[in-house]
Amino acid sequence: MAEAVRQLDAQGDVVAYVEGVARAAREASRLLARATSAQKNAALLAIAARLRAEADAILAANRADVEAATAAGLDAALIERLSLNPARVEAMAAGVAEVAALADPIGGITDLDFRPSGIQVGRMRVPLGVVGIIYEARPNVTADAAALCLKSGNAAILRGGSEALRSNQIIATCVHAGLEAADLPAVGVQVLATRDRAAVGALLAQAGLVDVIVPRGGKGLIERVSREARMPVIKHLDGVCHVFLDDSADADKALAIVMNAKTQRYGTCNTVETLLATPSAATRLYPTILAALAAAGVELRGCERTRALHADVRPASEDDWYAEYLAPILAVRVVDDFEAALAHIARYGSQHTDAIVTEQFVNARRFLAEVDSSSVMVNASTRFADGFEYGLGAEIGISTDKFHARGPVGLEGLTSQKWIVLGDGHIRA
Amino acid sequence: MAEAVRQLDAQGDVVAYVEGVARAAREASRLLARATSAQKNAALLAIAARLRAEADAILAANRADVEAATAAGLDAALIERLSLNPARVEAMAAGVAEVAALADPIGGITDLDFRPSGIQVGRMRVPLGVVGIIYEARPNVTADAAALCLKSGNAAILRGGSEALRSNQIIATCVHAGLEAADLPAVGVQVLATRDRAAVGALLAQAGLVDVIVPRGGKGLIERVSREARMPVIKHLDGVCHVFLDDSADADKALAIVMNAKTQRYGTCNTVETLLATPSAATRLYPTILAALAAAGVELRGCERTRALHADVRPASEDDWYAEYLAPILAVRVVDDFEAALAHIARYGSQHTDAIVTEQFVNARRFLAEVDSSSVMVNASTRFADGFEYGLGAEIGISTDKFHARGPVGLEGLTSQKWIVLGDGHIRA
Repeated sequence: MAEAVRQLDAQGDVVAYVEGVARAAREASRLLARATSAQKNAALLAIAARLRAEADAILAANRADVEAATAAGLDAALIERLSLNPARVEAMAAGVAEVAALADPIGGITDLDFRPSGIQVGRMRVPLGVVGIIYEARPNVTADAAALCLKSGNAAILRGGSEALRSNQIIATCVHAGLEAADLPAVGVQVLATRDRAAVGALLAQAGLVDVIVPRGGKGLIERVSREARMPVIKHLDGVCHVFLDDSADADKALAIVMNAKTQRYGTCNTVETLLATPSAATRLYPTILAALAAAGVELRGCERTRALHADVRPASEDDWYAEYLAPILAVRVVDDFEAALAHIARYGSQHTDAIVTEQFVNARRFLAEVDSSSVMVNASTRFADGFEYGLGAEIGISTDKFHARGPVGLEGLTSQKWIVLGDGHIRA
Repeated sequence: MAEAVRQLDAQGDVVAYVEGVARAAREASRLLARATSAQKNAALLAIAARLRAEADAILAANRADVEAATAAGLDAALIERLSLNPARVEAMAAGVAEVAALADPIGGITDLDFRPSGIQVGRMRVPLGVVGIIYEARPNVTADAAALCLKSGNAAILRGGSEALRSNQIIATCVHAGLEAADLPAVGVQVLATRDRAAVGALLAQAGLVDVIVPRGGKGLIERVSREARMPVIKHLDGVCHVFLDDSADADKALAIVMNAKTQRYGTCNTVETLLATPSAATRLYPTILAALAAAGVELRGCERTRALHADVRPASEDDWYAEYLAPILAVRVVDDFEAALAHIARYGSQHTDAIVTEQFVNARRFLAEVDSSSVMVNASTRFADGFEYGLGAEIGISTDKFHARGPVGLEGLTSQKWIVLGDGHIRA
């Protein structure tokens, strides 16, 4: 096993190393593309079993990573994400096993219709090829990303945060063992075995060998990847989400949705950051809703009309309308009417997730059609914008782009479709 | 009308001009995205009527373009593509009217299912936004591209070859008149009004304003666009297409398919460039097929085993297996077996279109699953790889990439899907 997987020696040239990894991945991708569902599922279950069997060794490697990170004075949030414990290793194994239970997207043929010429034309779902995933020091992502790429028939190149290198390497050995147990190539999933930051740049330059890059992490990482990558990127930038209360909004629904969208979790991309209401809705609903938010510890920043309706609202600046707080802060505004709400969302929003609370059919229909965001909701909390909630089974990431995939991206986002044509000696007239 | 559409004055800054065009297109894209099917179809029919009504003026402008191109000594093929006549103007108008008859892809909602949380989740098809199309001196593409972008709810920025500037400008006035007749913004379709080649680079730099670029033309243009574009590109590179005859290939089907795939048209990307056969198929079928090809004036370049089967075969070099001849030349090879055919196609092919001629179910099924090309065919001519033949109604282009769209790309290739969520006050647990 170890022979097949490239390791960078201490004197190694990191660019040559990454190119070698990419070439091996490209080769392996052909074998993974034609692996049967049974083989892929057997590999996933073998990986899960191996993760459980190697739990002690994984925890020991992780302790070494955590100690080094602590000694280096890294921040508590990073160390929390880096740290594994027996329950987290079990969750990692269970997550891999769950991917085995998902439907295999590969090979499915759709729309196989006869054409006037007599040929039958349809589309077959196929893997993208080689997927690169760049993420922070979160060892659980290593197992998760490997499982998703494997199930979708893609080869994977994984680059986790360098603080997790020891943890990631031992998780990689479990993945390799599972692949080989199912007669699949260990190099189908490669975890870059270097802390050298140049490895990221080298990976982003492999446009002929790597088909897509998925950055998972903070804004700095995603911006760097978007800027440097010479291949397509499935990326998620800001989540400046809105809830808009129109004249007809139901008071109970509005209160429940705003509280859930803001306070269920503050740090997620689908948390609401700006609340909008028409003048009559604001007069009717803001006093109760803003009092509840303030009682929950949410800092309110509002326009003048909002401030006239509640004492605890600080003045909002222009920057507040653009802000993704990821914190217990909410921007609140009164807009003139429905059109003004749409205009506010178009101007200040990030096209992530926006919701209307309304009892009017016409407004619901217009909001759905005209708000250009990856998720548009009626009478539901923005917090639902999530691969699991949407029934995707697992989430590769969330895309704020429109090209290829938009919003929560499941296994299908790592696939494409080719055309198939069946004939009986047919020629073109 | 003329006021709304930006013109570059003689002293103009081309970069600022293109950026202004892109900003206007971005604004217009919001209006086009919510245009009704009736409005879009009314605009298309008005454009078609205007093209017919202005036929004399279009032909006069085109004569000036052709005279200038002739005086400049440009080659005959370019002048042929540049030239319009009454029949070509009528075909252009008829093409636009046909797009009105296509189904509107925008706004369709699919897979609207209930989730365990009680919310209903589905996907709505939406335009990409602003589409840039860069093409050669072919005035008919101006009308065609405008129609496809309009029907798919996108704003368009068109940059045709500078030799066609006068023709394109007058076609643009017809498009603008049609848009305004349907109460849509004339700036929804803008034709760059400059011969300055720097306009292309400026357009490729508008990543925040232009969502996708479609280059239509020769390899040089496509390579430049791919290299410079900072946004996604729907592109088509080489078409090194194969026909493979396995042991079981039917003699009549093999002859008909090879002759059609090679000789129906030599210059198209879906023309076969390499013929492969197993040893027994070659012995049985090559003598007849190669004689027919030679009789049709096709130059044959083959491996040693092929040369032993037919007198008129010149020796092939390694380069021949990679060649996209676009000419009456065919590379011919005998491969050891089915596996060797797959390996040849994987190594030398361009993942465009490949066909097998076989009577064996197992081989048909494996070829379809394992050949990684945008179109894979059984017992049909590679010449069928075409948007109209596939029932797309119209073709934006052909993609040899896997991301977003693959193979012939219809209106759907200029769209994306957003998620919609319907609830009744639902919040996330």
